[in-house]
Amino acid sequence: MAEFRDSGVNFITGERGREIYEAVKDLPVIDYHCHLSPKEIYEDKPFGNIGEMWLAGDHYKWRLMRAYGIDEKYITGDADYKAKFNAFIEAVSTAYGNPVRDWVRLELSEYFGITLPLKKENADKIWELTEAEIRGEQLSPVKLIERSNVEYIATTDDPADSLEYHGLIAAEGKVKAKVVPSFRVDRMIMIDAPDYTEYLKKLSAAADIEIRSLADYEEAVSRRLDFFVSMGCRFSDMGIPVFPDGTACREEAEKAFVKALGGKKVGLDELKAFLGYIIVKLAAEYKKRGMVMQMHVAVRRNNNSAMYKKLGADSGFDSVGDPISVNVLAAMFDEMEKADGLPETIIYTLNPTMYYGLITLIGSFRGIHLGIAWWFNDHKRGMTESFNALGELSHVNTMVGMLTDSRSFLSYVRHGYYRQIVAEYLAGYADESNMDDIKKTATDLCYGNAKKLI
Amino acid sequence: MAEFRDSGVNFITGERGREIYEAVKDLPVIDYHCHLSPKEIYEDKPFGNIGEMWLAGDHYKWRLMRAYGIDEKYITGDADYKAKFNAFIEAVSTAYGNPVRDWVRLELSEYFGITLPLKKENADKIWELTEAEIRGEQLSPVKLIERSNVEYIATTDDPADSLEYHGLIAAEGKVKAKVVPSFRVDRMIMIDAPDYTEYLKKLSAAADIEIRSLADYEEAVSRRLDFFVSMGCRFSDMGIPVFPDGTACREEAEKAFVKALGGKKVGLDELKAFLGYIIVKLAAEYKKRGMVMQMHVAVRRNNNSAMYKKLGADSGFDSVGDPISVNVLAAMFDEMEKADGLPETIIYTLNPTMYYGLITLIGSFRGIHLGIAWWFNDHKRGMTESFNALGELSHVNTMVGMLTDSRSFLSYVRHGYYRQIVAEYLAGYADESNMDDIKKTATDLCYGNAKKLI
Amino acid sequence: MAEFRDSGVNFITGERGREIYEAVKDLPVIDYHCHLSPKEIYEDKPFGNIGEMWLAGDHYKWRLMRAYGIDEKYITGDADYKAKFNAFIEAVSTAYGNPVRDWVRLELSEYFGITLPLKKENADKIWELTEAEIRGEQLSPVKLIERSNVEYIATTDDPADSLEYHGLIAAEGKVKAKVVPSFRVDRMIMIDAPDYTEYLKKLSAAADIEIRSLADYEEAVSRRLDFFVSMGCRFSDMGIPVFPDGTACREEAEKAFVKALGGKKVGLDELKAFLGYIIVKLAAEYKKRGMVMQMHVAVRRNNNSAMYKKLGADSGFDSVGDPISVNVLAAMFDEMEKADGLPETIIYTLNPTMYYGLITLIGSFRGIHLGIAWWFNDHKRGMTESFNALGELSHVNTMVGMLTDSRSFLSYVRHGYYRQIVAEYLAGYADESNMDDIKKTATDLCYGNAKKLI
Repeated sequence: MAEFRDSGVNFITGERGREIYEAVKDLPVIDYHCHLSPKEIYEDKPFGNIGEMWLAGDHYKWRLMRAYGIDEKYITGDADYKAKFNAFIEAVSTAYGNPVRDWVRLELSEYFGITLPLKKENADKIWELTEAEIRGEQLSPVKLIERSNVEYIATTDDPADSLEYHGLIAAEGKVKAKVVPSFRVDRMIMIDAPDYTEYLKKLSAAADIEIRSLADYEEAVSRRLDFFVSMGCRFSDMGIPVFPDGTACREEAEKAFVKALGGKKVGLDELKAFLGYIIVKLAAEYKKRGMVMQMHVAVRRNNNSAMYKKLGADSGFDSVGDPISVNVLAAMFDEMEKADGLPETIIYTLNPTMYYGLITLIGSFRGIHLGIAWWFNDHKRGMTESFNALGELSHVNTMVGMLTDSRSFLSYVRHGYYRQIVAEYLAGYADESNMDDIKKTATDLCYGNAKKLI
Repeated sequence: MAEFRDSGVNFITGERGREIYEAVKDLPVIDYHCHLSPKEIYEDKPFGNIGEMWLAGDHYKWRLMRAYGIDEKYITGDADYKAKFNAFIEAVSTAYGNPVRDWVRLELSEYFGITLPLKKENADKIWELTEAEIRGEQLSPVKLIERSNVEYIATTDDPADSLEYHGLIAAEGKVKAKVVPSFRVDRMIMIDAPDYTEYLKKLSAAADIEIRSLADYEEAVSRRLDFFVSMGCRFSDMGIPVFPDGTACREEAEKAFVKALGGKKVGLDELKAFLGYIIVKLAAEYKKRGMVMQMHVAVRRNNNSAMYKKLGADSGFDSVGDPISVNVLAAMFDEMEKADGLPETIIYTLNPTMYYGLITLIGSFRGIHLGIAWWFNDHKRGMTESFNALGELSHVNTMVGMLTDSRSFLSYVRHGYYRQIVAEYLAGYADESNMDDIKKTATDLCYGNAKKLI
Repeated sequence: MAEFRDSGVNFITGERGREIYEAVKDLPVIDYHCHLSPKEIYEDKPFGNIGEMWLAGDHYKWRLMRAYGIDEKYITGDADYKAKFNAFIEAVSTAYGNPVRDWVRLELSEYFGITLPLKKENADKIWELTEAEIRGEQLSPVKLIERSNVEYIATTDDPADSLEYHGLIAAEGKVKAKVVPSFRVDRMIMIDAPDYTEYLKKLSAAADIEIRSLADYEEAVSRRLDFFVSMGCRFSDMGIPVFPDGTACREEAEKAFVKALGGKKVGLDELKAFLGYIIVKLAAEYKKRGMVMQMHVAVRRNNNSAMYKKLGADSGFDSVGDPISVNVLAAMFDEMEKADGLPETIIYTLNPTMYYGLITLIGSFRGIHLGIAWWFNDHKRGMTESFNALGELSHVNTMVGMLTDSRSFLSYVRHGYYRQIVAEYLAGYADESNMDDIKKTATDLCYGNAKKLI
């Protein structure tokens, strides 16, 4: 990673912090959870321009532009990328405190060597300099992955996916990083989706079994898990905007599932009953295969139905959800543990008011890790808060590491961002006697703990 | 504004912060939400003494005195103002961290030139110095408004109010600041109040229509809105201690309203149904008139019924309420947006645990602003927290500005307090390249953004 | 107390903080709430070794070891204390931010004069040095109590307890500190416990009345209260993992109680109804006797039923509970106040997201104190947060003081820890004019306010 000070983003305030950062800044990146496209990695097409790289699909940036008051034409509309880029630079350069402002500066510094102050007066110059670099270097996904020293990439994939591109990437052997799938169950378990029967057909086809009952469905899931594992999958994931009110028995779940299978409308209580059963069931399946279970909770999606109609999901209209009751989470984990079906788990909350309840709850079990501050929380104060709370209530070294969670190949700079935060946090506990221990912890938090899981 | 350092209240720690503060400290005040009495402004009677000015009705101060253990006789009882003042000085001078301690010092410094340390040994001296100033200068409401460089005052008024004094103030032309009403709907929509039928009679009379149905009521509301707008009104407000569980249809609302109209007891569910309908309906009315909707949420009032019987409302027995579910707020705003009836909105929460959910929710719509930390939150850490969260999750420049929310003409010093906090917050993001942008943002936050709404 | 700087734990950053700390560091300790055993105090047996002192029963430490990944054999298993100690040192020395790491260093410094850096390489040396001190000084409970300058100890006792050892301690007169019981009602009011009828028999016997009705039960409670008060009891306590949904009438409570008395299974709603009645009733009893009511809320216990079966309660499987609704607490306190049955009260919350609601609620009554950050919250940031919130919303000097809450005679160092935090917090408000007032407040917070209650 480049020297962070060039970017203007520097969280480190003292000598010890700098020394700790030096110890971790060049470690490889383990990107155990992202939304990168295996197809784009395989095809490895050179990028167009910085406008496209930044603004074609990044809803973090779209939100920021909307908050600043920019017309939708320059966000998801038909303006050209140069005009969109100019509008974005104006919005982001004054977005004090917003992590996007930091990330943009880190990306410019790291991948383009640009350390011009981020301000609208410099927009044209920044455009030109990035153009020169993109064209001159023929920047492409694989080039960025390599420049970023990435050794492992776990993408996010639907259980019905063929994983064709993962196969092609492995067969070709061009990408040095290992690129493997993750088992993301959202569509598979959200039985109230309008197109759920269509989804089941895809799953049937992928698993080569006709799904006519819950037992068939479970068999299909089991087969797909085996296939994913055979393709190198280590992680499952779930990030649904509904959470059950507790565990539920198989009979209840079956009733709801059969209704969904028959194309009938499934109510919220039925959906929750199904989830209360299937989440525990899936956990046991993960455990059996030595997989890691990831849960992303306290999310709301698609708050603005007028914009949802126009732009669909993942367009910047999501939000932090209400906190999930610790009683419910306790019931779920206890049920898993009782049946010896609690896998190694990482749980991420989007609502930071849950930290105290959540961290003390998971500290009542073994092998459940708090996920690093994520999405709306993945900024300096948010990450520092997750370290603070974890340190106070548990052992800080139970944190698995940085979650890139990105849809952009430029996002690897967030590891440098995270590593600064780790270094600065730990520096607060360093003294003349314990720098070796501290650096060991920093290395674990930036690399070692994730490495253990892959 | 006076130099803040004289008061002992100084939040600014560095050169850049001071430079930013210099850029905003003399901007005019736009007091877009307060509880000042238009009658008192019009009559403009010179004040009695500092004891009366501070302690006649300010329940912030009463609470503080109770917490310190002072007998009620010196709070709302029959002790004279000098004795009450002495008791207050003892309580406030050791109320470390309480913003009242800061405000008091700012008021003494700003309006009386007093920079004696705030301690009980100085109580008599402070009394004498304020006496001299109040008598010598014949201090009065209008004098304080002018000294405070106020250009706009929006008071808080009931829809049934005649706005007589607003008319008199305008006609007289003595006050340089524009003094206009705001449309505060609490009594109008809380249909479960014991005296609601009486209220409806007042509303009928004011709107010149007999209210015999929900349709009549809506017509009355519409007429009062038109009248308020004709008197310069730009802002509505709502600060009710109940929040609906979601939107509701007109039929449900009508059933509840008719019951209330007939003088029957309205249950909590009926009240909520009415609110779930009328809040959306009112929003559309505001939008139609280009008004700004203000919502104050997560409030509890009158916790102590024994004291309520003795002293009535607004006596210092209110509290922060439970957080409102983001699901409910999402449903309300989405309903407004779908029907193209979402006006420019400012939403204030009294419960700061709502910030992450609320800011990301309103970031899913355009034109909804987070209100600055308010009431129990309007201190240094509270305001800084609202800037931090807003900056992290949105664009900090979406904040409209300081909410005076005061019942006292001395409270304008809170703008200086707020401006210090803005300056110190922004200084954390300043570097050699961006001071112009930062000062522009500071100016927007202290003046420009509020100016756009009036 | 020893100089804190020797321990490596130093929260004080400036001259004024140090001056304030000097003013409080040698004040006696009032331990108004702990879980020390009166039997152990009376018997006063010399301790075995540091492994046993630390690890025989301290579930804070057990949790930390589990989080670090240590095998249960070295936690609650059959490994010897030296091996457990070594494992613990490895876990705790890298537990940055965890208060156990601070406490351990303070204990080593204060009671053993050990200021070696806490790291696994020093484990053997620390063991040897502690061995020498324990043997040489014949360290025992009473020696530690005296070294810690404790003047008052209120233990935690069941209403059915005979208080035999309190009597023996008083009769013997060897312990200089006053050792008195507290009235802990959990078992007495949790009528859904499987062994509740057995408990009632014990209570009957202790109160010398056969309990055949709610009236009998109330009479028994009243007698036990009188007995406890005769033994010097000043404090009651409650720390149940369920909270009522509001107040309840005697009829409802009676129905539930009679069911429990008859050995029938009591449902959650019935339990809550009973609690909603009895908590208010008990409050009036405390008030009548001039006692202080303590409430510990927002707790979950025994999250891991598999481990509960193996190890029972208090083994490190508890957690922070969901926040209690401010509406419910308001209803309870208002009911007490209306009936003139609200005693002096201290309420502690385990869920810090409740602070703003809770502090403003209790500020609506007189004589209800916020308890200092407790259990999972009793670290630097947690305590500082409780001071910050209390200062902002009330008067910081309403805090009663440090809650030791300990099961270990070494835990008195937490008073030094607390006093550092008090000093550093207040230093933020000190200037050249108010050091006397500040020191007075510090003294109140470290000693005077607790003294007033005993």
